[in-house]
Amino acid sequence: MSQAQWMDEAFALAEEAAADGEIPIGAVVVDRDGRIIGRGRNRRESGDPLGHAEIYAIREAAVAIGDWRLEGTTMCVTLEPCAMCAGALVNARVDRLVFAAFDPKAGFCGSLGNLVQDPRLNHRLEVETGFEEERSRVLLQSFFRKLRVRDKTERWQSG
Amino acid sequence: MSQAQWMDEAFALAEEAAADGEIPIGAVVVDRDGRIIGRGRNRRESGDPLGHAEIYAIREAAVAIGDWRLEGTTMCVTLEPCAMCAGALVNARVDRLVFAAFDPKAGFCGSLGNLVQDPRLNHRLEVETGFEEERSRVLLQSFFRKLRVRDKTERWQSG
Repeated sequence: MSQAQWMDEAFALAEEAAADGEIPIGAVVVDRDGRIIGRGRNRRESGDPLGHAEIYAIREAAVAIGDWRLEGTTMCVTLEPCAMCAGALVNARVDRLVFAAFDPKAGFCGSLGNLVQDPRLNHRLEVETGFEEERSRVLLQSFFRKLRVRDKTERWQSG
Repeated sequence: MSQAQWMDEAFALAEEAAADGEIPIGAVVVDRDGRIIGRGRNRRESGDPLGHAEIYAIREAAVAIGDWRLEGTTMCVTLEPCAMCAGALVNARVDRLVFAAFDPKAGFCGSLGNLVQDPRLNHRLEVETGFEEERSRVLLQSFFRKLRVRDKTERWQSG
């Protein structure tokens, strides 16, 4: 599978999240041979404060490998990871990170800081960005636009 | 329950981790009424790359409350949280953090950075440190000392 196909799978997971009323973000972890071994999508409204796409994808990959060290793997995700997820990528020893859009409000892989390339930590990732940036932005904007329309309609209906 | 009792419980969890061959770190989440609603201890060697004490304590507390927002809660932990756990505390909206010892190598609540009090993020925590610092340091040092002795013995025995 190619990087475009990994990212397609991450976007399919993001759309699944949107259909479920969750912010559309999806992530996959890919092994050395290009096979997807972990999948995740946002599930925070289900009640899990740790419910980011990256967290589920990392956990699933660790189960698949049978080790907490995900050396040699790549994460593809539709939005720049937050501090928690960036820290998780370092802790899990993921080797490469590809993300579509930057998150200027909470991203910690280039925007507000860069935890995945901090020379003081015991592991660093290679980072590639800008791949399918527009697709991610459109998906998120359309989700939040629908949410605002729904909120306004509900407020109008309830008087 | 008092803060000293919460920290005692966190240390009891840390000792449980050590007995299981895991780095001795323990954490509890306490609600507004001072009741412990989440407990966790390090379990990384079980294969979970996200297996830090804080992660389990946050998840258990969210289940107890039935919401991902842990507003009004306090986390007591025996060691300064790393970037992943600091990010998780912000994402979960925990209000207060009490930790025993600083972690100069990976701590992100004062040592290498301060993610839990970053004015650019949408939530910040009150932080209290230095409570039982020596107890945490002694526990960790004694664990790593035993590990080194064991490693040396094993190397000696295997030739």
